[in-house]
Amino acid sequence: MKILGIEHLGIAVKDLAQDSPFWKHILNIEHRSKEVVEDQGVITDIYDTGKGKIELLESTNIESPIAKFMENRGAGIHHVCFEVESITDAIKELKELGVHVLSDEPSVGAEGYKVVFIHPKSTGGVLVELAEKP
Amino acid sequence: MKILGIEHLGIAVKDLAQDSPFWKHILNIEHRSKEVVEDQGVITDIYDTGKGKIELLESTNIESPIAKFMENRGAGIHHVCFEVESITDAIKELKELGVHVLSDEPSVGAEGYKVVFIHPKSTGGVLVELAEKP
Repeated sequence: MKILGIEHLGIAVKDLAQDSPFWKHILNIEHRSKEVVEDQGVITDIYDTGKGKIELLESTNIESPIAKFMENRGAGIHHVCFEVESITDAIKELKELGVHVLSDEPSVGAEGYKVVFIHPKSTGGVLVELAEKP
Repeated sequence: MKILGIEHLGIAVKDLAQDSPFWKHILNIEHRSKEVVEDQGVITDIYDTGKGKIELLESTNIESPIAKFMENRGAGIHHVCFEVESITDAIKELKELGVHVLSDEPSVGAEGYKVVFIHPKSTGGVLVELAEKP
């Protein structure tokens, strides 16, 4: 598969109002967009360095993956996302190699990217997302 | 301060021999370098996507920051590093803003970068490194 770069880093935060100013005003990274991703139960607040984005993730309900992560580990880096040329090719290749991907078909994530996640069991403890630009 | 991009993502691993093949052979990210950083007590094994690097970190002694992180949280993403134009300007600015930087002067990290760390207390739970290219 062809990795094109680090697309973003997903960071679980408790409260965007309290936690976003560090990224926005202290590190001074340009704000890109803010949107609700319904099927993930999160608000994503995205900042773009121009060479990799920061995606702050605030849970919108107590059953969401981010809420569960926060319960177990607290706020912090949740996942890394790599841009790939073709998400369907990547999924096919990973499955052939016996890598544990969380779904057989890509879903649509923030900013309309087609995405899939790789289970941390297959990566040495890191939740890895792959994404194809819309 | 001027952030130029995500320089790398630091990932704590138990055993490079066991954990590096995922990044090298499955994600197929180009290997860049491997070096011991004595004063951090780690071996760094670096892969470059061309748009952000992956720095795998294996502890060389049980007192190292990575060994302590592994003890508390297990293998996984340890820190994110941003490239800055000027590390001394960044440190000065952060201190004026009351941000908890871990040292007043930069130290020399992997690949000869001048680096400083920001305490997770000041960032909402993320260990943030800033680095200036040598």
